[in-house]
Amino acid sequence: MLLSLKLEDLFVAYSLDSAALSNRPMVKRYLSDLRGSFADAAAYEAALAQGNPLLYEVSAVEPATGDGQLHYGLGILYPGNIGDEYYLTKGHYHTHRPAAEIYIGLKGEGAMVLEDEATGETRLVPLRANSAVYVPGHTAHRTVNTGAEPLVYIGVYPSNAGHDYGAIAKKNFRKIVVQRDGHPVLLDR
Amino acid sequence: MLLSLKLEDLFVAYSLDSAALSNRPMVKRYLSDLRGSFADAAAYEAALAQGNPLLYEVSAVEPATGDGQLHYGLGILYPGNIGDEYYLTKGHYHTHRPAAEIYIGLKGEGAMVLEDEATGETRLVPLRANSAVYVPGHTAHRTVNTGAEPLVYIGVYPSNAGHDYGAIAKKNFRKIVVQRDGHPVLLDR
Repeated sequence: MLLSLKLEDLFVAYSLDSAALSNRPMVKRYLSDLRGSFADAAAYEAALAQGNPLLYEVSAVEPATGDGQLHYGLGILYPGNIGDEYYLTKGHYHTHRPAAEIYIGLKGEGAMVLEDEATGETRLVPLRANSAVYVPGHTAHRTVNTGAEPLVYIGVYPSNAGHDYGAIAKKNFRKIVVQRDGHPVLLDR
Repeated sequence: MLLSLKLEDLFVAYSLDSAALSNRPMVKRYLSDLRGSFADAAAYEAALAQGNPLLYEVSAVEPATGDGQLHYGLGILYPGNIGDEYYLTKGHYHTHRPAAEIYIGLKGEGAMVLEDEATGETRLVPLRANSAVYVPGHTAHRTVNTGAEPLVYIGVYPSNAGHDYGAIAKKNFRKIVVQRDGHPVLLDR
């Protein structure tokens, strides 16, 4: 196993200014890709009429698959808001529902919205530099940037986790994160 | 699942000055705990005669177990040397051999020694701030601090990985990391 791995599989350097990784594909999500994610549709359309900013970028490192294997991704979510809502990621379940994920906050100030698939119960958990968030299995998770600089993080997950964006896109998260008196609060959609 | 988790399971803040985490047990390894790990036994005994410094600290966060679950640990390895060898961790296999691990470098300059159990093949992979190392399954792994400040990192691993220190302690790593002209090089033990 070890013999067959390239150094670029074993070692990945990253910057905190971009999610770009050498030799890895990167997904960029613009405001136009987030239709339906924000609660305030009028604010969304008004913002889109003004331009189509980059909201976030994600790269993935997938050295191997099989029992016990892990993948990870680097994400950068830019600061901003649509109406009262903070910039956010689409959010997803893992296709293999029991798969957990560990997020490591590298830079910035944000939070994760965790929604239990069975009960709909929602938790808002801080994600910022020098902190880690545990995302249990069976939990939709979304990242929001509540600060003034880019929010940069790494997520580590089992190689068989998979990303299911469809299930949460169809019904959306039950709660939204909005700014009230300068602080993030969780409200019903 | 989500309902039953305490905030301290979902969110863990850490500093880069200590591996201490609120409400988590921390293991401290002193020079006297590393007997047999360094190749230069005379230098080891001479150093120990002068004192018994703290070499590293490790804390673990283990929110849940089962299919798809992940645990993680925060480590801090102090700078120093025994003869030509850099301060190092004992190193281990995972008890569940296929389990991989992702290390995230948070601060400092170091490297990981990876040794394949079947072939004995060894790789020296950098580990430093703003980089990640993939440790395949079936691979003994040890961290060395090659810099002048503490090396701080997080390791994420499947909850069923387990730590097997005995197998590598018995035969030791085949290669050692020594300083030559100010740089780390890998030599036969």
